[in-house]
Amino acid sequence: MDKTAVAPNCLDGVRVLDLSQFEAGPSCTEALAWLGAEVVKVENPKGGEPGRILGTGPKPDTDAYYFMIYNANKKSVTVNLKSERGLALVKEMAKRADVFVENFAPGAIERLGLGWEELHALNPRLVYAQVKGFGQGSPYENNLAFDMIAQACGGTMAITGERDGRPCKPGPTLGDTGTGMLLAIGILGALFQRHTTGHGRRVQIAMQDAQLQYTRGAFVQHARTGQPAMRNGAKPMAGGSLAPYGIYPCKPGGPNDYVFLFTSHNNPQHWRRLLEIIGRADLIDDPRFATVVARAQHEAEVDVLLSEWTRQHDKHEAMRLVGAAGVPAGAVLDTGDLLAEPSFAQRGIIQTMQHPNGEFRMPAFPVRFDGAPAPVKPSPLLGEHTTEVFADWLHMDAEDVNGLRDEGIV
Amino acid sequence: MDKTAVAPNCLDGVRVLDLSQFEAGPSCTEALAWLGAEVVKVENPKGGEPGRILGTGPKPDTDAYYFMIYNANKKSVTVNLKSERGLALVKEMAKRADVFVENFAPGAIERLGLGWEELHALNPRLVYAQVKGFGQGSPYENNLAFDMIAQACGGTMAITGERDGRPCKPGPTLGDTGTGMLLAIGILGALFQRHTTGHGRRVQIAMQDAQLQYTRGAFVQHARTGQPAMRNGAKPMAGGSLAPYGIYPCKPGGPNDYVFLFTSHNNPQHWRRLLEIIGRADLIDDPRFATVVARAQHEAEVDVLLSEWTRQHDKHEAMRLVGAAGVPAGAVLDTGDLLAEPSFAQRGIIQTMQHPNGEFRMPAFPVRFDGAPAPVKPSPLLGEHTTEVFADWLHMDAEDVNGLRDEGIV
Repeated sequence: MDKTAVAPNCLDGVRVLDLSQFEAGPSCTEALAWLGAEVVKVENPKGGEPGRILGTGPKPDTDAYYFMIYNANKKSVTVNLKSERGLALVKEMAKRADVFVENFAPGAIERLGLGWEELHALNPRLVYAQVKGFGQGSPYENNLAFDMIAQACGGTMAITGERDGRPCKPGPTLGDTGTGMLLAIGILGALFQRHTTGHGRRVQIAMQDAQLQYTRGAFVQHARTGQPAMRNGAKPMAGGSLAPYGIYPCKPGGPNDYVFLFTSHNNPQHWRRLLEIIGRADLIDDPRFATVVARAQHEAEVDVLLSEWTRQHDKHEAMRLVGAAGVPAGAVLDTGDLLAEPSFAQRGIIQTMQHPNGEFRMPAFPVRFDGAPAPVKPSPLLGEHTTEVFADWLHMDAEDVNGLRDEGIV
Repeated sequence: MDKTAVAPNCLDGVRVLDLSQFEAGPSCTEALAWLGAEVVKVENPKGGEPGRILGTGPKPDTDAYYFMIYNANKKSVTVNLKSERGLALVKEMAKRADVFVENFAPGAIERLGLGWEELHALNPRLVYAQVKGFGQGSPYENNLAFDMIAQACGGTMAITGERDGRPCKPGPTLGDTGTGMLLAIGILGALFQRHTTGHGRRVQIAMQDAQLQYTRGAFVQHARTGQPAMRNGAKPMAGGSLAPYGIYPCKPGGPNDYVFLFTSHNNPQHWRRLLEIIGRADLIDDPRFATVVARAQHEAEVDVLLSEWTRQHDKHEAMRLVGAAGVPAGAVLDTGDLLAEPSFAQRGIIQTMQHPNGEFRMPAFPVRFDGAPAPVKPSPLLGEHTTEVFADWLHMDAEDVNGLRDEGIV
């Protein structure tokens, strides 16, 4: 556990019954776990949730990195949902839970008898949260969805890629984690409200719908022009109306050796300072570059001018020199750069999960409370907490749990 | 206001003192407003926050669409923070607020005398929230940041774009709204905790750090291979290990006429069903395509096979036909497609803001409570609620407020 980390304990005493899998649901419940909730994953005794075997992990035939990263700080119990006794156990747990989260395929949770009506009747205080690919009432309401399907249908790909190229998938998993974060906001709102009302609510989000929350800049652009917003590399969606704006090549010329530079509309000093840094103060009064409008008209010349300088520097140095002059600058960093950045480790932004299968350096929750990050604790082994949680939540003793295990129920 | 919309009222009675501007802070406080908090923007009497004039709006010289979209459902008061009396008013408001949010340049809020220590001393119950570009302790802690700078330095660009091309900026504004949503989670956690402890907390997030939360798939990829994760168009980051997987061209061949198709590892039926849909059931037993491994080895052939079919259909039809067969499919939709989708309007996912300057069709908050979306209400005119809020929060009468106005304080 990271030395700088301090558990924020915001959700102390909040119990989350987590029937979610893969990323959209698990990223949401993991955020709740990082805030201090007791998150209990309910998994199939035969192998657990499918994310456990999605790709490789620290050792052969152990939990995948994919599972570890989205399930830190949680507990795991196993329950066979195909057995009546197993289902009854989950209902008993739901009576004692504060939050229920699921992201099965459409209709599956209702077929199990664990739908909103049933669980709300059993426990009116329960906040009942669901992720689906498409919203109720959508023509695609019964379709399967995955991160990239949600991104295609949610508008993120159309605005991502080179101007004359094909749509690209944004690398971030907005379809999954982007959705999970919004669901967490909804759950926390409902939990807050329960203090007053005493009642839980049904909280729902669709992965397609969630994408629109992150692409509102494109809707602003559409309103301005009356036309669909279009991708434009690393330039503004508008298409060339700002210069400098974009990524500029740095040495030694590798695929991620670029620095993002731009100068603000609101601050004419940015351009002058930039010219001084690149040793071209002689151009400060040049009419081709004197105003925002003039620079936009001479965008190609501006880009050549800056590239001549950036090519002489590596991206870190370029960012340091330009940033220190009070001009916005950002090196294009990849996962290798980020993992190697000492201040991320010092600040607990990247932490090492100490897992029985092996270590895993991974990003931690980026929100800080009173200056400290939340600690990353290991993702649970399959069924690691069955005995503990059944004792604590359902007052069962170890012998009872062993009996259930022998019968294949847990 | 949308007919299907129902105010969720989760945060009834919660007062948010909002000194934020542009998008990262405002998207956060807007989410709180949608959940029912009373969010009061404090703005400069001379023009208000700079987002008000960022680009065009429904009419010349009125609030920009940019401002409208990130400030729905809020109130606005004007206060001159350069006057002592103005600052004193803000401190009085802070005494009566539950949440304080700011995203000024590094050090600015402390120079105003509105830092955490001061406001915490005045109101120990206050949740004090801040967005900066880079975290405390980062070598870039004093640098300016904007959405694209955060995305460059946070790793999203390196994993976005064509395989052999330059990094691209993901179209979604992850640097801004992506950060704002995580801060909202932190604020809601702290508000929940305050029920028990009676104390507010300092909640901080840096835009660079926030990007890592959405790019964890790339860190999984890095852990698997030991190499930085790289962009790969709309294909998997791994590089060609899954087929079919990606976007396939549809008629009539416009820049966004593509459908995303893939078949799950876990369900061999997907591929067979897809062959039946495209009229190539004759290939079901073809050894080139019989297994996941075989298809990956014959990726180019798989892509040709599917493209021959997708080119004969428009993207909506392709999505409908493939999706109905239980195989994942997603049309690449742009803002035009999304605004034209009838079910978004019916479900209140896209609503029309009825603003005195003109209407604006925009995405609403995608989380639903008991089946209903939150209503979109207008963004405030500059200082629209000064008299009302000062009466309600500070028990000042209209005459007092007029006096302050005459002195240039509000």
